[in-house]
Amino acid sequence: MQPSIVILGAGYAGLLCALQARKLLSADDASITLVNKHFYHQLITQLHESAAGARSDRSIRISLPSIINGKDITLVKGIVQTIDTKNNLVLLENNKSLAYDYLVVALGSDTEYFNIPGLKEHAYTLKSVNQARLIRTHIESCFARFPYEQRPELLRFVIGGAGFSGIELVGELADALPKYAADAGIDVSRIELYNIEAAPGILPGFDQQLVEVAQRSLESRGVKFLTGQPIVKVEDSIVHLRNGESINTETMIWTGGVRGNQLVIDAGFNTDPRGRAIINQFLQSPNTPKVYMIGDCALVIGENNRPLPPTAQLAWQMGIATGKYLYHDIKGGTKAAFIPHIVGSVASLGRKDAVGKVLKSYRMYGKMAYMAKEASNIRYLTKIGALFKNEPFSSTLSNVSQ
Amino acid sequence: MQPSIVILGAGYAGLLCALQARKLLSADDASITLVNKHFYHQLITQLHESAAGARSDRSIRISLPSIINGKDITLVKGIVQTIDTKNNLVLLENNKSLAYDYLVVALGSDTEYFNIPGLKEHAYTLKSVNQARLIRTHIESCFARFPYEQRPELLRFVIGGAGFSGIELVGELADALPKYAADAGIDVSRIELYNIEAAPGILPGFDQQLVEVAQRSLESRGVKFLTGQPIVKVEDSIVHLRNGESINTETMIWTGGVRGNQLVIDAGFNTDPRGRAIINQFLQSPNTPKVYMIGDCALVIGENNRPLPPTAQLAWQMGIATGKYLYHDIKGGTKAAFIPHIVGSVASLGRKDAVGKVLKSYRMYGKMAYMAKEASNIRYLTKIGALFKNEPFSSTLSNVSQ
Repeated sequence: MQPSIVILGAGYAGLLCALQARKLLSADDASITLVNKHFYHQLITQLHESAAGARSDRSIRISLPSIINGKDITLVKGIVQTIDTKNNLVLLENNKSLAYDYLVVALGSDTEYFNIPGLKEHAYTLKSVNQARLIRTHIESCFARFPYEQRPELLRFVIGGAGFSGIELVGELADALPKYAADAGIDVSRIELYNIEAAPGILPGFDQQLVEVAQRSLESRGVKFLTGQPIVKVEDSIVHLRNGESINTETMIWTGGVRGNQLVIDAGFNTDPRGRAIINQFLQSPNTPKVYMIGDCALVIGENNRPLPPTAQLAWQMGIATGKYLYHDIKGGTKAAFIPHIVGSVASLGRKDAVGKVLKSYRMYGKMAYMAKEASNIRYLTKIGALFKNEPFSSTLSNVSQ
Repeated sequence: MQPSIVILGAGYAGLLCALQARKLLSADDASITLVNKHFYHQLITQLHESAAGARSDRSIRISLPSIINGKDITLVKGIVQTIDTKNNLVLLENNKSLAYDYLVVALGSDTEYFNIPGLKEHAYTLKSVNQARLIRTHIESCFARFPYEQRPELLRFVIGGAGFSGIELVGELADALPKYAADAGIDVSRIELYNIEAAPGILPGFDQQLVEVAQRSLESRGVKFLTGQPIVKVEDSIVHLRNGESINTETMIWTGGVRGNQLVIDAGFNTDPRGRAIINQFLQSPNTPKVYMIGDCALVIGENNRPLPPTAQLAWQMGIATGKYLYHDIKGGTKAAFIPHIVGSVASLGRKDAVGKVLKSYRMYGKMAYMAKEASNIRYLTKIGALFKNEPFSSTLSNVSQ
């Protein structure tokens, strides 16, 4: 019988891994099983748009059966409970299990709450289409209730965390909230939008010049930044800050931390203190080389010897690389070490603005950065499309040997 | 000084009265003041569409300043507290008052809860754009929360009352709820939509044949009717029926009763047991002929000696007639008694179906009835438009003398 590849998670990393592996390996070479919580792939880099009502949920949810149709990839809808590396088994809900010869763990990240009391219980998070819908419908109901209840906390919105995800969400809300107010016949000046960050400034890792551009853009749209201000406790609707002040709000959204996946820790894999799986240069778990760990659940060290932040482009590259590694595992040949190519990053700041850097040197802001951001989204969909259509996929193998 | 006309309420009756009066009376003849809670007129016959998300709030809210612009009608935004008929004064919030020579009370109806315990506290009502938004955002949040909470009552929707408003809302929801489910990735079969009615059947006053068409149309879309089944009590999320059964729901919407306006009773006007103002054939309060009572707050007796149900077309005709009566009050001439012309009624059953009767004889259903319903809505807007534009308004006076 041919070897079985089981891939856990159909996010950017897992889906591209499955498509790349199937591109290189025929159904006779290996079976491929893709396990995912939903029957859809999620464009999670667009979730901030969905949470603010600027994009439909449907456009962010891509049917997995339609992508893998006719490709001899078995899709299993299920939630992974544990990984049994001794017996090469994945255990799903309802006592179902899947045997594997090669396992790819691409289960994404968990939220890091830094043990802040009440934060997990009282804050929304934005890691799925369903969570985005929860946030969006909650915000809309705040505006609908305000004319009856008149409580200022209904129109006070607090985003915890000024990293990439937090700032993109703040930008989107800065554009969307005034529209909701106008629709509900509420004076726009009643809206309060806070961004709270423990670090001294917003967008850590970005050039200071871009940070200032972003901050000015958002402040001009009414955003109030509270930087250098850790959250110390969250009660039902009260966010307590270290300086003793507190903010009363019906809407607290936490984007302030990510960590590896608890399932990876529970399965006994080695992780760093933030729960990210330790992997070798071929993205394998060092002691169990038949297990690949890719995407946000894994730790990748960058050129400056510091961990790379978990991003879609990194997950995407790890997925493609692992598809190729699996080909070499089964068909032979030499693997080349994984080298991430971070070509830049662009943070959107709402519907019309963005800041970004490309190839670590060229800075962008405003309309041009926004266009680049849109282009990167389109590029991803094109890439899935190319793998999906079985069209010639340029430099499929050559990249590995670079 | 010229006499002052004060009109309370800019609904169908009040707005058309103001426009008609100003059409016939110059600014030198009379001042006209229109008092309304909002700066907008509401197309309340379309609220069921807004509540179900099938129509934008903006299209139902028509700016009053834009309608009365340049017409020498003074718009006062305020909530009427009391009417002092002894001193010809209307008292508003914040101790403001308005003196009148002629008063038109067009304040609409209140909801009749029939003293059912808990109903007022726990049920939504659908009498304004703001209430429609409250219902719509609540329903959307039920679908958003369901994947997390899995409680069936989140997807169980109960409409109390199977009169005109109740059935129109049920029809709209029968079309809208499956779309919400699909959007949220929820199996449509999980939705439950109940219509509860104390009377033995739905749509009282409609021909039995049309009632059956309507019921079949709605049942084919999954609506469950519980007729002859009064609600005896409503607890937090539990609707108790007389037969001892109860329904657990997060969404109870009450459309089952209207009564006159409490303000009319409080001001000492005579009313019938349902709180509707007693009026004479010229729509005046019998003992205070300088006060007209029109629209849903007034009692109009039909040909068969029974009260006419409060409808937009009746309110509209009363508004137009009163505009003409005010002309005669101030400029002289003979008033003709008000004779309602109920040309028929069409109940929409969602996005594609409707039932109706026209001129009491010709029955309609399906697409044709739906088109007639849409046409009647357009006709109303055209009528406002004609009065608004100061264009020749056909048979403005001749109708009165019919």
